[in-house]
Amino acid sequence: MTGKNAFYAQSGGVTAVINATACGVIETVRQNQGKIGKVFAGLNGIVGALTEELVDTSLEADANIAGLRFTPGGAFGSCRLKLADPDVDRREFERLIDVFRAHDIGHFFYNGGGDSADTCLKISNYSAQMGYPLQVIHVPKTIDNDLPFTDNCPGFGSVAKYVATATLECSLDVRAMAKTSSRVFVLEVMGRHAGWVAAAGALAADHGIPVVILFPEIELNEEKFLARIAENVRRYGFCSVVVSEGCRYPGGKFLADQGAKDAFGHTNLGGAAPVVANMIRTKLGFPLQWAVAGYLQRSARHLASAVDVRQAYELGCEAVKLALEGRNAVMPTIERLSDEPYRYRLGLADLKDVANVEKHMPVNFISEDGFGITNACRNYLLPLIQGEDYPPYLNGMPQYVTLENTLVSRRLAPFVI
Amino acid sequence: MTGKNAFYAQSGGVTAVINATACGVIETVRQNQGKIGKVFAGLNGIVGALTEELVDTSLEADANIAGLRFTPGGAFGSCRLKLADPDVDRREFERLIDVFRAHDIGHFFYNGGGDSADTCLKISNYSAQMGYPLQVIHVPKTIDNDLPFTDNCPGFGSVAKYVATATLECSLDVRAMAKTSSRVFVLEVMGRHAGWVAAAGALAADHGIPVVILFPEIELNEEKFLARIAENVRRYGFCSVVVSEGCRYPGGKFLADQGAKDAFGHTNLGGAAPVVANMIRTKLGFPLQWAVAGYLQRSARHLASAVDVRQAYELGCEAVKLALEGRNAVMPTIERLSDEPYRYRLGLADLKDVANVEKHMPVNFISEDGFGITNACRNYLLPLIQGEDYPPYLNGMPQYVTLENTLVSRRLAPFVI
Repeated sequence: MTGKNAFYAQSGGVTAVINATACGVIETVRQNQGKIGKVFAGLNGIVGALTEELVDTSLEADANIAGLRFTPGGAFGSCRLKLADPDVDRREFERLIDVFRAHDIGHFFYNGGGDSADTCLKISNYSAQMGYPLQVIHVPKTIDNDLPFTDNCPGFGSVAKYVATATLECSLDVRAMAKTSSRVFVLEVMGRHAGWVAAAGALAADHGIPVVILFPEIELNEEKFLARIAENVRRYGFCSVVVSEGCRYPGGKFLADQGAKDAFGHTNLGGAAPVVANMIRTKLGFPLQWAVAGYLQRSARHLASAVDVRQAYELGCEAVKLALEGRNAVMPTIERLSDEPYRYRLGLADLKDVANVEKHMPVNFISEDGFGITNACRNYLLPLIQGEDYPPYLNGMPQYVTLENTLVSRRLAPFVI
Repeated sequence: MTGKNAFYAQSGGVTAVINATACGVIETVRQNQGKIGKVFAGLNGIVGALTEELVDTSLEADANIAGLRFTPGGAFGSCRLKLADPDVDRREFERLIDVFRAHDIGHFFYNGGGDSADTCLKISNYSAQMGYPLQVIHVPKTIDNDLPFTDNCPGFGSVAKYVATATLECSLDVRAMAKTSSRVFVLEVMGRHAGWVAAAGALAADHGIPVVILFPEIELNEEKFLARIAENVRRYGFCSVVVSEGCRYPGGKFLADQGAKDAFGHTNLGGAAPVVANMIRTKLGFPLQWAVAGYLQRSARHLASAVDVRQAYELGCEAVKLALEGRNAVMPTIERLSDEPYRYRLGLADLKDVANVEKHMPVNFISEDGFGITNACRNYLLPLIQGEDYPPYLNGMPQYVTLENTLVSRRLAPFVI
């Protein structure tokens, strides 16, 4: 007996540690030969399941799979694709079941955020409806840290560590330049609706840095903001600003709104930093510098949080264990037991409760003036950025792994998405 | 006998390793008690010499001075201030001599790039003219890597390592997203007139990444550029672009020209990436992501090159040794002896040859198509990014040092710059 095969796919924006989860899934399956068959990974996420482009991970060397633990990006490719509602159009869901059946797939591991949790739930419901036995496990991943029920999401801790460190480093730079040159540094970070990533920049305040955070949760009060910048420059000689890409004007318009939409219909953002920089330059006259971290922040595996890497890996292992226990339509979670010393255990949430719920920052995490974080937030963030988990280097650069990604032979007719 | 005191100051844009040079200067002076007195550091560079704001580094604990080796930014503050030509206005130069005389300063160490080499030369000439005995040593530093006579400049190797690594990491990210989302990633890096920093991004090509470099040395051929992007996306599914802030349109206008000027009259740049991104989006229709590295690249001490840190430190030590040998109006340099294994020795250049000369990329470092680097460039760059020199971490963040910066009592009347 070899057990049913497993399908694994990466969904949505990749992170510095999503491959660590893949590593956990694949290594745990390899350790459970006889109970689960092969892991077939979707090439480009769920797209690969629809097009029958399945990577046979059993052909990858152990060392390459181990290397996923320290390799950023998405080793099998990810996707932004929202499946049609099966009550409206069953075509995609029928195809998925056909592909799973053709390749004897009985376990479905989907590694993503809120949208993919929703996809998981629909697939679980549909396969039950069709009488196809499938265990659907959603494995959390999102730098946005906005999934409910889990204390934090893999990917976030590493972004937080990068943003906290980069804010500190850039602030030391602008502090040195402030006398005759730039007095303000503006860093734009990710976070469309939740200010988790921006909040991490506030950790630089523990190192003597005057830093002002612009959260997506709080509409910009331009007058109050500029007064705070002016006051910091007066007192300290310089000031740093960390602005979330999701920061909005009163009324709700994004500072960075450029009109474009992504595949999910979300507004495509970018460029809040130059808007804030221009505001400060025009109204206060301070010379300044700005940066847009973009992919730099979420791909920075070279500065990953050791806690984050470990949790990403463990959740991959846990997902397989849940499947072996016969679970379906669930998501393994991280339950925090204490802040200091930091202790956590893995838990479980039902997908019906998770799908399409976005976790915002608790109100008591943002300081009363709206420009910083509270001690409660600090105590939440600090455990997540602990420890360094450096990749190996060869010839001056990280020695990241690229897999062979050999596809399984097709058994079905082509499918047009 | 205690010897004359020394003045040390940081000039221009700071780097991830300029404090390592300060560490080398101060530690070497401490090891030569009796021959040199105290090191007085200019608060905010040469400004501190004019305003008589001198930091008494002898009051700093050894551990703090040692910590400078791994602390980015400029520990004493830097400045962008070009002194008036003494033939036109002697006021500033007279003041400098007054301050040096008042504090028994006989050695002048100025840690900067091309502009500060020029300042050094003027100070050396003027003090000789005035009969004031002063040894002027310029200690090279610039991420632009554009000083002549030295094989490379401290600060550059660490930026190169960061840009090479970040280009690789972000490329792994966009590669994973390309099927249904972003196909192109555009990273803007520093380099006003010389493409050294942008060239480092091309090292990602060794890791299977299709990457197109836009150098300041080569006017943008938009048609050829877009054709190359389209071709890469067709062949590889994705493409990365590293664009120098100094990239120009035919005719010489900067892509990023926003009209403002800095204290030296240089055009104040920023925002080439969004221009390039818009070009690709409009003309080719590819979804894409862009980032502007700004200070992130030059302050990234968390990813410093070990070779760079060592050389920055050694040049600080060497500067003091040159002073002890009685040298004046010189700059210690790095002379490369071989690429592989990488070997170098410290050398010497006369400031009269260094001042105001900008070293561009050799023509044979840019590939024939203008979008990449040659093997000669690769062989030049690789030794400079070797080795990791991680700072210590405490509670998840680098444990950078902030000095006491206690000022020496003033002996002169105030001076208005």
